[in-house]
Amino acid sequence: MGLPTNNIKSNNNSNNNNGSNNNTGISKNRIWKRRSLITNKRNSISGMTYNLRSKVSTIPNTGSIKVGFVGLSFKKGWALKTHYPAILQLSSQFEITALYNPTIDSSISTIRELKLRNATAFPTIESFASSSGVDMIVISIENMNHYEIIMSLLKYSQNNANLKYLFVEWGLKCSEKELETICAETTKNGIQTIISLQGRKSPYILRAKELIAQGYIGEINSIEVAGNGGWYGYERPQKSPAYMFDIKNGTNLVTTTFGHTIDVLQYITSSYFSTINAMVINNIPEQELVDDFGNKIGQKAPKTVPDHLLFQGTLLNGNVPVSCSIKGGKPIKKFTKNLVIDIHGTKGDIKLEGDAGFVEITNLVLYYGGIKPNNSPIYKTSDREPTTGDSGKETMEVYHLRNYNALVGNIFRLYQSIADFHFNTKQIENLPSQFAMQEFEFEGFPTLMDALFLVRLIDNVYKSNDLGSTLDVSKIYQYP
Amino acid sequence: MGLPTNNIKSNNNSNNNNGSNNNTGISKNRIWKRRSLITNKRNSISGMTYNLRSKVSTIPNTGSIKVGFVGLSFKKGWALKTHYPAILQLSSQFEITALYNPTIDSSISTIRELKLRNATAFPTIESFASSSGVDMIVISIENMNHYEIIMSLLKYSQNNANLKYLFVEWGLKCSEKELETICAETTKNGIQTIISLQGRKSPYILRAKELIAQGYIGEINSIEVAGNGGWYGYERPQKSPAYMFDIKNGTNLVTTTFGHTIDVLQYITSSYFSTINAMVINNIPEQELVDDFGNKIGQKAPKTVPDHLLFQGTLLNGNVPVSCSIKGGKPIKKFTKNLVIDIHGTKGDIKLEGDAGFVEITNLVLYYGGIKPNNSPIYKTSDREPTTGDSGKETMEVYHLRNYNALVGNIFRLYQSIADFHFNTKQIENLPSQFAMQEFEFEGFPTLMDALFLVRLIDNVYKSNDLGSTLDVSKIYQYP
Repeated sequence: MGLPTNNIKSNNNSNNNNGSNNNTGISKNRIWKRRSLITNKRNSISGMTYNLRSKVSTIPNTGSIKVGFVGLSFKKGWALKTHYPAILQLSSQFEITALYNPTIDSSISTIRELKLRNATAFPTIESFASSSGVDMIVISIENMNHYEIIMSLLKYSQNNANLKYLFVEWGLKCSEKELETICAETTKNGIQTIISLQGRKSPYILRAKELIAQGYIGEINSIEVAGNGGWYGYERPQKSPAYMFDIKNGTNLVTTTFGHTIDVLQYITSSYFSTINAMVINNIPEQELVDDFGNKIGQKAPKTVPDHLLFQGTLLNGNVPVSCSIKGGKPIKKFTKNLVIDIHGTKGDIKLEGDAGFVEITNLVLYYGGIKPNNSPIYKTSDREPTTGDSGKETMEVYHLRNYNALVGNIFRLYQSIADFHFNTKQIENLPSQFAMQEFEFEGFPTLMDALFLVRLIDNVYKSNDLGSTLDVSKIYQYP
Repeated sequence: MGLPTNNIKSNNNSNNNNGSNNNTGISKNRIWKRRSLITNKRNSISGMTYNLRSKVSTIPNTGSIKVGFVGLSFKKGWALKTHYPAILQLSSQFEITALYNPTIDSSISTIRELKLRNATAFPTIESFASSSGVDMIVISIENMNHYEIIMSLLKYSQNNANLKYLFVEWGLKCSEKELETICAETTKNGIQTIISLQGRKSPYILRAKELIAQGYIGEINSIEVAGNGGWYGYERPQKSPAYMFDIKNGTNLVTTTFGHTIDVLQYITSSYFSTINAMVINNIPEQELVDDFGNKIGQKAPKTVPDHLLFQGTLLNGNVPVSCSIKGGKPIKKFTKNLVIDIHGTKGDIKLEGDAGFVEITNLVLYYGGIKPNNSPIYKTSDREPTTGDSGKETMEVYHLRNYNALVGNIFRLYQSIADFHFNTKQIENLPSQFAMQEFEFEGFPTLMDALFLVRLIDNVYKSNDLGSTLDVSKIYQYP
C-alpha cells in the first residue's frame, strides 16, 4: 500500500504542486522530503538554522495557528506543565481556541483560570472536532484509548476545512494496526501529524547529531546506553494512579523511558536497527505504598509493568553494536548519572549525560572529543566555514546550557518547528503542504509515521523477550 | 557421573580422611568444601584472613613446592612477566626445578639466564612429567593444544608420586568434552588443578565480594559492565602472531577479555547466570599492519576473531539483569575508563574502574556508597566487630592501592593461595587434600572445574549468537 497524498489541504505559504504530489508511496515521499528540506543551500544543515529560534517573532500576516486541546486542565497534568507554557512563549504563532475534556465544567474552569480569552469549551468531541476555529488538535490524554479518540476526531473533523495538524502525545495506547489505520486516515484527510518525540528537538541531541553527520567522530563503532527511570521501584506514592503500573496500558518503562531514548539514539546516528534482543524484567511484582512524605502506609499494590529492560542490537548503518540497560526504580545510582549515552567512533567520542533518566525532559551535558574532519563525509560544510589547516587536529567540546528548562524547552522547540513549517519561516523553496515522516532529517518534526516505526520496534522488544529470540527488525521500517 | 575422589595422594599437613572423602559426586564435595573452608571461626570470611599475606614467610619444615614449568622462556612471554616474578617473591614456598620447552636449548638458556640453580632442562615431555622432582606442573603455552599436552603430562606423570598440582593458564584451547576428560583424569590421579582466573585474587574484587556478602549494598538489582580490549582493532603490529587473530584458536576477545570479566562478576556476586543472549561481532575482517613505531606498512592481514561482544542476561540469584558490552580495538574511549563494572543494590552501589579493559591484570579503583547493614544477611559478622549503633548509616569508601602491580600481584596472590592450601598456613581444621572447585568461596583458588563452567558459558555465548536465541544456561553448572 502506498501513501495516498491526494486530497491534501493547502499550506499557507507553500506551493502545493511541486511535482512530487503524486501517489507514489512513502519511498518517493521520503526522497522528496530530503530534497525539499535539505538541498536548499541557505537552509541546509551546514547553515545550522534548525538550531536557531524561529524568525517569526511577530504575528504573521496570516494569523496564528488555532489550537484545540484535548486534555488540558488548569489543575494538573502534563499538558499544563509543558504544552501550555510552550504555547504561551509562542503566542504570536499559536493560540488556544478550543478545549475538550471529559466534563465541560473542567474545560470552562480551565479557560477561566488560564485566562484563555478566545477559547471555547466544547461539550462533545463532535462539536469540538468540527469547529472551524481549530487549525490544530493537540491530544494529551492519560489512560485513554488513542485509537478511539483519534478516529472520532478524524470522523467529526471531515467538515472542518481548516484542520491541518494533529499533534499526539507519546506513548500511544493503540496497536500497530490501529496506528497504521490512523496514519492512512490522516494522510487521506490531508492532516499533517506530529508526535511528541520531543527529544529530537533537544539542542544537545541536535548538536550530537550534527557532530556525527559532519564526521567529527569518524565512523561510529560502538554505543552504550544506561538509563534509570525513577518510577517502577520498590515503593510508589499512594496517590499514583494504578494504570501507570498496569502492563495493559501504554505508558511504562519500555514505551516511554526506553522509547524516547532509543528514538533519540536512532535520530542521532541516522540509523534504525537491524537486529535486536531484549529481556523485559519485572522483579518487583508488588510495591509498597507511601504517603506524601515518603512514609510507608503498610499497604502493597500490584505492579505488572517491568522494572528493567535489557536491550542490545546492531544498527542498520555500519552494523554498530548497541548495548542498552534501562533500570527502573529508586534508589538511584550513586556513581553514574541517571542517563548516560556513550557513542564511540573511529575518530572521537560523544558522551551525553542527564541527571534524570528521561532524555526528552532532562537537561543534558554533551562531551565531545575527537579529530576535526577534513571534509564532512556526508554533507559538504558551509561555504562560509574556513578551510584552513585546523582539520585533523584534536578538538574538545563541552556543551551545556546551564539554565535550559528541558521539560518545557524541548516541547517549545517542537511547537516552534511546527510554526516554521506552517509559516515557512525559513523560506524553503517548494516546501510541501504535508510530509510523511521526519525520519532522520534535521528540519521538520516527528510524525505519527515516525511513531509507527517506534511502535513496531517496541513490539519487537516484547516479542524478542517472549520468544527468547534475537530478531531481525530490518524490515519493519516500511509502510504499511 | 560423580566426581571420583579415590586414589588421591596425601596432602602434606592435612588430615586425609575427614569423612567426606567418599565418592558422592560434586554436590557433596562442594558442601564439604564450604564447611571446611568457611566454618572455622578464626578463618571465616568475617576474619578476612584471605586478604592477608601468607603466614609462611620462612621455608616450611616440609620444603618448598617444586615447580616444573612448561613454557617459561627468558626471552619473552607471559610466564616470564607474571609467573616468574610471582614465584621469585614466594621463594620460601616455591622453587622452579624443571623446565620443558619445544627445544631443550631454550630450557637450558632460560635456566642459565634466570639463574634457576636447582632446575633441570628436560628433553622430552615424558622425562619432564615423570621426574620425581616436580610437585606442581605449570602450563603457560601459546597456540598449543591444551588437551594433547595435558593428557600427555597426565599419562607420563602416573609414576611420579610427588605430583600434586597442575596449574593451567586461561584461556584454554580445548573443547568442553576434552576439558571434562581432563577434569575426570586429574581427579582420578589425585591431582589438584588450578586455573589462572587470577582476577578472583584481586584485592578489589575480594573487597567488592566482601561488601556484597556482608549486605553493604542490600540486594543486587542491576549490573552494567563495559570493557574495552585494546587489541582486535583497525590496526595490529606486523610482528603480532597470526594465531591471535584466528577464531580457530582459544585466545580472543570473548574467551579472555570477556571470560575473565564475567568470571570475576560471577565470583563477586556469588551467582552464575540463568539466561543469556549474546551477539559476537566482527566488523573489522581485515587489519592494517603497522611497524614498531605504529606506522602503516601498506599491508593488510585477515582477522576472524570478533572485535565486539554484546552480552546480556540475568543472574540465577535474584534474577538480576546484567548488561555487558566488550569493545575491541583502539581508539580507546575518551570519556569512560576502559573497564567499568557498576553493581547496583537496594542499599548501595559499587563501581569498579580500570585503566585497561582487562580486569585480571589492570589496577582498579573501587567506589562504594551505601548503608552499613544491621546484620549481614549471609554471614554473621565477627564477634570482634562492635555492634554499636552505626548500622543503618550512609557510608562511603574509595579503595585504591596506588602502587599495586596487578599484572604480577594477582598471579602472586594465586600462588600464595596455593601455598596456603598446601601448607595449611591458616590452620583450617579438616583441610582436605583435594577439592573439586572454588566456586564462590573466599578461600581457595579456582580449578579446572571452575574453568569448565566458564568454558560452557562461553560456548553458550557463541551458541546464542549462532542460533539468534536467548538461552537458558541454568543447567550448565553441573558435572559432567
